[in-house]
Amino acid sequence: MSPFTGSVARTSDWHHLRCTVADGVATITLARPEKLNALTFGAYADLRDLLAELSREKSVRALVLAGEGRGFCSGGDVDEIIGATLSMDTAQLLDFNRMTGQVVRAVRECPFPVIAAVHGVAAGAGAVLALAADFRVADPTSRFAFLFTRVGLSGGDMGAAYLLPRVVGLGHATRLLMLGEPVRAPEAERIGLISELADEGRADEAAHALARRLAEGPALAYAQTKALLTAELDMPLAAAIELDASTQALLMNGEDYAEFHAAFTEKRPPKWRGR
Amino acid sequence: MSPFTGSVARTSDWHHLRCTVADGVATITLARPEKLNALTFGAYADLRDLLAELSREKSVRALVLAGEGRGFCSGGDVDEIIGATLSMDTAQLLDFNRMTGQVVRAVRECPFPVIAAVHGVAAGAGAVLALAADFRVADPTSRFAFLFTRVGLSGGDMGAAYLLPRVVGLGHATRLLMLGEPVRAPEAERIGLISELADEGRADEAAHALARRLAEGPALAYAQTKALLTAELDMPLAAAIELDASTQALLMNGEDYAEFHAAFTEKRPPKWRGR
Amino acid sequence: MSPFTGSVARTSDWHHLRCTVADGVATITLARPEKLNALTFGAYADLRDLLAELSREKSVRALVLAGEGRGFCSGGDVDEIIGATLSMDTAQLLDFNRMTGQVVRAVRECPFPVIAAVHGVAAGAGAVLALAADFRVADPTSRFAFLFTRVGLSGGDMGAAYLLPRVVGLGHATRLLMLGEPVRAPEAERIGLISELADEGRADEAAHALARRLAEGPALAYAQTKALLTAELDMPLAAAIELDASTQALLMNGEDYAEFHAAFTEKRPPKWRGR
Repeated sequence: MSPFTGSVARTSDWHHLRCTVADGVATITLARPEKLNALTFGAYADLRDLLAELSREKSVRALVLAGEGRGFCSGGDVDEIIGATLSMDTAQLLDFNRMTGQVVRAVRECPFPVIAAVHGVAAGAGAVLALAADFRVADPTSRFAFLFTRVGLSGGDMGAAYLLPRVVGLGHATRLLMLGEPVRAPEAERIGLISELADEGRADEAAHALARRLAEGPALAYAQTKALLTAELDMPLAAAIELDASTQALLMNGEDYAEFHAAFTEKRPPKWRGR
Repeated sequence: MSPFTGSVARTSDWHHLRCTVADGVATITLARPEKLNALTFGAYADLRDLLAELSREKSVRALVLAGEGRGFCSGGDVDEIIGATLSMDTAQLLDFNRMTGQVVRAVRECPFPVIAAVHGVAAGAGAVLALAADFRVADPTSRFAFLFTRVGLSGGDMGAAYLLPRVVGLGHATRLLMLGEPVRAPEAERIGLISELADEGRADEAAHALARRLAEGPALAYAQTKALLTAELDMPLAAAIELDASTQALLMNGEDYAEFHAAFTEKRPPKWRGR
Repeated sequence: MSPFTGSVARTSDWHHLRCTVADGVATITLARPEKLNALTFGAYADLRDLLAELSREKSVRALVLAGEGRGFCSGGDVDEIIGATLSMDTAQLLDFNRMTGQVVRAVRECPFPVIAAVHGVAAGAGAVLALAADFRVADPTSRFAFLFTRVGLSGGDMGAAYLLPRVVGLGHATRLLMLGEPVRAPEAERIGLISELADEGRADEAAHALARRLAEGPALAYAQTKALLTAELDMPLAAAIELDASTQALLMNGEDYAEFHAAFTEKRPPKWRGR
C-alpha cells in the first residue's frame, strides 16, 4: 500500500514459494506439497523478503497465505532445518531464529490484512504463521499443532508465547504450547482460534472471497484498523485512546469517509477508493 | 464516591440525555428514540461532563447506561456528526475524536461500576460505550456492530482496538473491528461480550437489579476492584501484585471488612457501609 | 531445576502442608481437610518458602498442588486470618498481603509447570492459587469463587485482577471478581478456566498423570515455555520475538533437541534428558 518506491527492483521469481497479485489481492502459496509444505531456510527467507516487497507495493490491499496439497504447512523441515541447525554455531542459530521471527513480525506489521487459508495440518511454524495472520479461514479438516516442545524446543517460537495467549487466553495457550497436541477445527473454533469456518475443501475459496471484499473496500481504513490492533496490544488505555483519536481525525480527511457520506445521502453504495 | 467537593455547581438540566440518581444508583438514559439514540456533539459532551460530575458525587455507587425506545444506541448521527465533520479543520477533528475517547476513559476510570443495559442495536460508538462498561446486561434482541470501517474509518475508535481484544481475544476482535458485521446475542454471549443475558425486554430491569445489589454492597471494595481491573491491564505481574497488596492492606482497615467479620461471627448478614 | 545449591539446608518437615517428591514430580497437598484446607498465616509462609526450595531443586520437574478431603481450598481462614488482621497495624497488613502475593509470583515464576488438581471448592485465595497454576485439572464437582468482595475486600487479590482477564477475558473477569459468585465446572470449562476436565474424583490422578508426562519429557523446553508465557504477557511483540529467538538458539544447543533428531532419524521414541 505504500506509494513510496525507490531503486529496488521487484523480484520476478521466487524459488521457494509461489506469489501472484491480482485485483489488489496477493496470494502466497506454500508449494511443496510432497513435504506437506515443510519450510526450508529458503522458504523462510523468501517469506521475509516477499512480505517486505509486498508491503511497499501500492497495489496490494489484502494477502492470502495458503498451502498447496493435503495441508497448510507442517512447519520447519525435520531434515533440512532441524538436521542442519545441529551443526550451526551460536551466531547462525540466532540468525536463523531471528529470521523466522521476522516473518511473524512482517505478517503482523504489513499494511494490509493477512488471511491464512487453512486446511489439514498447520503445525509448528505453520501454526504460528496462521496465528500471526489477521484472519484464519479454516475448513473442518484443519488441525493446529504448536509442537515445538515435541522436538525439545520452547513453545514460545516466533512470537507464539506472545500471540496465542492474546488470541485464546493464557489457560488454553499454556496447554497448547506446553503439550503441543493438535487442536482440531471444532475446538479451534470454540476457543477463538478460527475466524471463519469454511466448508470442507473451500478454505482457499472463502479466504479469497474475504480478501476480495477487503481489497474492494476502504483499504486505508482496514490498514489502520490492523495497525491499531497490533500496536494497542502493547499500549496503555490512555495512549491507545489518543492514538485512536488522531487516526480517526486523519481518516476523516480521507476520500472514503466523504464518499461514504455522499453515497449515504444519495442512497447508493459507496465507491471505495482505499484512501 | 468522592467526598471532596469544590465550587462547581451540579448541572441541573442535561439537554442531550436524561439522568436520575436514586438510592446510590445513577441512570443515564440516551433519550432520542426517534433516531435510535444516535449521538450528537451535544450528547458526547454531556456524557463527558456528566460522568465527571457523577464521579465526584459521594452518593453514586453504581451507574446504569441505557437507551430509550427500540435500541440501545445506533452510534454517531450520520447527518449531525459525519456530515458536520466533513467541513471541520484538523484541530476540530482532533478535538471531536478526543472528546469521544474521553467518554470511554471516563467510563473505565469512574469510581463505580458501570452497567450497560442493552437491547436492540448497539452500533458504532454505541457498541464501544457498551464495551467500555464493566457489565453488559443484554437481552436476546441485542446486536453489537463495530461498524466504523463501513463509514471509511478505523475500527479502532474510542479505544475499541484496545478494549475488544482484551474482552473477546485478538481473533474475534480483528474480525469484528475489521468487518463491522453485527454480532447477535448468542454469539456475543459465546465469545464473552455479554456479562448477563436478560429475558427479552428486561435488560433495563436486570441492569438496575444488578446496580442496586452493587450499591447496597461493599461499594469501596467494588470501586477498588474496578480500578485494579482497569489499571492492571497495563501493568506487569510484579507491579500488579504489589498494587493488590497495598489495596488489600488499605481495605483491611476499612469498616466493611470489620463488619463482615462481625456479621460472620454473629451469624447475621453484613450491613455494608461502602467504606 | 537449578543445579546451583548453596549453604541452605532443605527443610525436612513442613508443619502447615504436606510435600513429597518422587520421580521428578513434587506434590504439595493442602492438608487441613476439617477446615476445607483453609489457609493460615503458617500455610502461606510455608507455600512461599517451599516453592523457593523446590525451585532450586534440580530434581523437580513438575509440581502438583492438591487439596485433601472434600475440596481444594476454601481460601484464607475466617477466624485465623480475617479475625487476626483486624488487629494488625498497617505495616503488618502490608507484610501479610505481600506474602500472599509472593506465593502467586512463586507459582508463576518457578522453573517447572504447576498443575492445580481441583475438586470441590476453590474459593478466595484457593481460587487464585489455582488460577496462578499453569494447568487446572478439575473434576465436575469443582467450583471456583473469587469471593473477596464478599468479605469487603478488593477482587484484585494476589494478582487476580491481573491474571483472570488474561485467562478468561476482561468481561468474565470483571463479573467474577466483582460479584464473587461461584463458577461451576461447566462454565469454568466454557470460559477457559479449566485446562483439563477429569472424571469425578479423579482430578488428583489426572494431574499426576500430566505431571509425570511433563517430568519425563523435555523438561528444559517446558520450563522455558512457561517462563516465556509468563514474561511475554508483559512484553511488546518485537521484544517477545527477540526473546523467542534467543531462547530457541539456546535450546538448539541442548541435548534434547539433538536427541529428538537422532530418535526421529532412527525411527524410535526420544529419550528426553530434560536439558
